[in-house]
Formats: sequence, structure tokens, C-alpha cells
Amino acid sequence: MVEIVEVGPRDGLQNEKVLLPTEVKVDYITRALDAGIRRLEAVAFVHPGRVPQMADAEAVMAAVPRRPGVTYIGLVLNRRGLDRALAAGVDEVNMVVVASDEFSRRNQGTTTAEALDVWHEVAAAGIPASLTIAAAFGCPFTGAVPVDRVLGIAASALQSGPREIAIADTIGVGVPTQVRTLAAELGALGVPLRAHFHNTRNTGYANAVAALEAGITTLDASIGGIGGCPFAPRATGNIATEDLTYLLHGMGVGTGLDLPALAATGTWIGSRLGIQVPAMLGRTLD
Amino acid sequence: MVEIVEVGPRDGLQNEKVLLPTEVKVDYITRALDAGIRRLEAVAFVHPGRVPQMADAEAVMAAVPRRPGVTYIGLVLNRRGLDRALAAGVDEVNMVVVASDEFSRRNQGTTTAEALDVWHEVAAAGIPASLTIAAAFGCPFTGAVPVDRVLGIAASALQSGPREIAIADTIGVGVPTQVRTLAAELGALGVPLRAHFHNTRNTGYANAVAALEAGITTLDASIGGIGGCPFAPRATGNIATEDLTYLLHGMGVGTGLDLPALAATGTWIGSRLGIQVPAMLGRTLD
Repeated sequence: MVEIVEVGPRDGLQNEKVLLPTEVKVDYITRALDAGIRRLEAVAFVHPGRVPQMADAEAVMAAVPRRPGVTYIGLVLNRRGLDRALAAGVDEVNMVVVASDEFSRRNQGTTTAEALDVWHEVAAAGIPASLTIAAAFGCPFTGAVPVDRVLGIAASALQSGPREIAIADTIGVGVPTQVRTLAAELGALGVPLRAHFHNTRNTGYANAVAALEAGITTLDASIGGIGGCPFAPRATGNIATEDLTYLLHGMGVGTGLDLPALAATGTWIGSRLGIQVPAMLGRTLD
Repeated sequence: MVEIVEVGPRDGLQNEKVLLPTEVKVDYITRALDAGIRRLEAVAFVHPGRVPQMADAEAVMAAVPRRPGVTYIGLVLNRRGLDRALAAGVDEVNMVVVASDEFSRRNQGTTTAEALDVWHEVAAAGIPASLTIAAAFGCPFTGAVPVDRVLGIAASALQSGPREIAIADTIGVGVPTQVRTLAAELGALGVPLRAHFHNTRNTGYANAVAALEAGITTLDASIGGIGGCPFAPRATGNIATEDLTYLLHGMGVGTGLDLPALAATGTWIGSRLGIQVPAMLGRTLD
């Protein structure tokens, strides 16, 4: 069994040019729940001038359906974001620490070490908190990221008791051998792991299989495969929830998700954004 | 070390609406060679009314550069195609046997068993011959294809001494567990294997990794990731040579190929076809 954490409403939308009305975002989230999603990164509490698509985070959280067993995650980068997330009533927060200082400064205006300090503050807020190590597989500005750098961040973060630590290939440069190395080294630290892949160079699904087979059973994905980081050049979409689910079901791995409903939602969100989504499954069904 | 067999000029082009002039096809092939490709499915000798893009197969073969160490493969489906391939001076022929009778009839007008009879004739022609088992992972008309069906075809084909047998996921429905099962079962028969994946549902690259790790070191791919079967509904492209090469190099697996040259060729063939090619690598470099 794999738990897919749906990140389309946050990572998926944040890099899209078309700003969706709040009610369409709530519709996207509701359709995800109807397809079986139970844990969902719904919004980011970040500066609306920096990420305009997330400006209505409070309004989205006020309108989403509250159902038993459904967990809403809010992404935060700092204390102010944490306070907004708590006030908006999220069930869980996810904090991002970028593995390279240069990308960290561009993404959130701090060094990696400063972001880790914020993480410890976030983790102490009394709400379940997880950490995403962004650019864990490579940085768009400085290239290769040493495994020891990622391990050091994880070892520090672990002191504050994260629900889990996600290794994120933010710019889609990673390959399966890297996934296995990181999974083994982080696993040896006793870190509960999640993985987050982008399909920028068509390695994302192979990486997901490698993660699964290395024992990582919680995977981020976005319905439609939309997404990307506004502060990384040429960043493109997350692995698509529907294509990942197709792959997992084909391998005999359960997800609890309704594949046709996911594929239809991917096609639908593409129509709302005026794009052909990167997910492939919907194209086989049109 | 992996040998990538470039199939863009054949499988890649055959499903494209824009008919390319012969000289552009020869340019595509020449660029592939310049990027390090040494074995290439250049043309198909099939009915020009059925596959118009392949109508100039003889003219293409007459114009391609002949270089030491370069092998040109011609695809054939019957005796007439074989005679044309021999007259055109290909170095090797590849015959297709479709694993399901229904798809076989639509693809080449024969049952699977009748196609196998043709294969034995082709293999006796005195030129290196390989066999592709199409729809080995599933049929667009009849669904699942039993492993025993593929094994039976391979066992029969093996009697005529193929250079290799390719397992082809013609419609891109396969997943890594299937790849491992087929590779193990066919490997136990002593079959020299090649694998051929389409990325129709985003499983192609994960399948390629699974094939490699199951010991298959010869993989088909098309520069640009173009392709598909004209006789299968909604068929889409092969895995892209450049994206596969990126993945392999990242895993420390050599290919002998020049990655920037491949990516540039993928973007170039897209411009000649008037499409954005499915390959992703070129988009990160534009």
C-alpha cells in the first residue's frame, strides 16, 4: 500500500500562469477527495506578491470540505506562514528547507542553516509537522548536491521530531541510483521518509518505483502532473497522481484511489488552466 | 554499457501526419550517427498505401551515409518486404510478430501463427534477422496478453536463430513487474533479448530501468520520443533516446552517445514535424 499525498492544489498550481478563482481550487480539492485522496497539500502560506496563485490560501482553507480521515497540509516557509497556517486551521504543516544556500536564498530569502532554525520553531508549534528537503537531488544554480549535505539537514531536522522528511527532486534531475542511495542513508538514520519527484527529464516515475522498492511508501504527486517551482528556471510538473496510480496498480500495489476519477480530474484541471496537462493517462481515455 | 537501437526514423516517423521529404529523413539519420548511434532501424518495407511515411524506404537507404560500424535495420512484415529490404542493401532485418491475433490481423493481415511462419522464412534469408514480439505487454483490442503466449512465440522463433528477440510494449501499458517477469522467463529460454517501450502512460522509462536491471542491455528508443503504431488507437511515442541516455548516464551506465547532440536533434526533428516532441530533455535546454 502506498499513500499518495496530493500536492496539485499547492505545488501543482503555484507555477501556473492562469490564476484560478478560489471556488475552482476548492472544486479541484473536492474532486481529489472524491477520487480517494486522504492527505493533501492544499495551500501555501507564502507572500502573495511572490506566489500570487497562493494569495487566497485562507479563503481556500475556509471553504474546503471537512471529512473524516482527511488531512489538510499547509506549506510554510517562516514564522509568519506558520501563524497563518495555524489560524486557517490546517491539520498539518510542511516546511521547506532547500539543500543549497543559493537556491534557498532565491526561494525563501535565507540560507539553509537559517531555514533549519525556522524548522525547529515550526516543529515546536504543537501541530504535526513534516519537512521537505528541496533540491535534494541537485540544484538549478550550483549543480550536484552532496549526499552528506542532505544527511546533515535530515540529522538536524530529526531532532525536532518531524512526522516525516521528504526528499524532493525539485528540478527533476534525479535518477533511481540516487534515490536508492538517499533512501538507504536516510533510512539508516531512522528517518520516516516521503519522496517528491518532478518529471522534468522523464525520470520521475522510474524514481518513484526506486523509492517504493527502497521502502518509501509515501509519495507526493499532483493530479494532472502540473507544477513546478517559480524560483527555479524551467521547472516543470510533479509526477502525475493518475499516471503514478496506474503504474502502482499495475504492479499490484494498492493506493485506495479511483483511477478513472483521477484521470478525469486531471483532464478537467487542464481545461480550467487552459493547458494540456503533462499527465498521460487522460489522453488515452479522451 | 547499453546499446540503444535508434528507431526514430522508422517507428518514430511512421505515425506522424507530416510526410517528410527523403532528404530530411536522411538528415535525421545522419544527425543520429553524428550523436554516436551505431545501430538504427532506418526504414520499413511495408505497403505505401498503409504507411505512407515509409513509401520512400528504398530512396532513404540509397542515400544514408555508410560508415564503418554502423548497422542499418529494415523492418519487414512479409516476403515481399524482405525482398525489398535485401535489394535495398540493409545490414539486418527486423520482423514483427504481434502477440494477439486480433492486433496481428489489423497490423499485418495475418494471425500470429501465420506471421511466425513468415518469420522462419525471413530468418532463413541469409542476413542477420531479429524478431519483435509486438503487444507483448497488452493488446489494444483484447487486453491482457498471457506470458505463456509470449513465451510460446519466442520458443518457436528461437528455432530460426534470431540475432535477438525484442519484447515490445507497443501501446505503452506495461509496468516494471511485467518487464521483470518476461525478462526472467524469456531469459530462461536462452533468448538474446532487446526491449522496446512506449511512454503512453508514463511507465516507459521505469520499464527501461527494470529491463536493464533484469539484464537486457539492448533498448530501442527514438530521438525526440516520437512514434506510435498507425494500427493501434491512441498509440503514442517511444521512449526518447535523449531522455533515456540522460537517465542511463546519471546511473553510471555508458551508451557511447553525445547527450547534447541527441537533445538538439530531438528539438530539430520536432521543428521539421511541426510538433513539440514528447522528449523532455530538449525543453530544459532551449
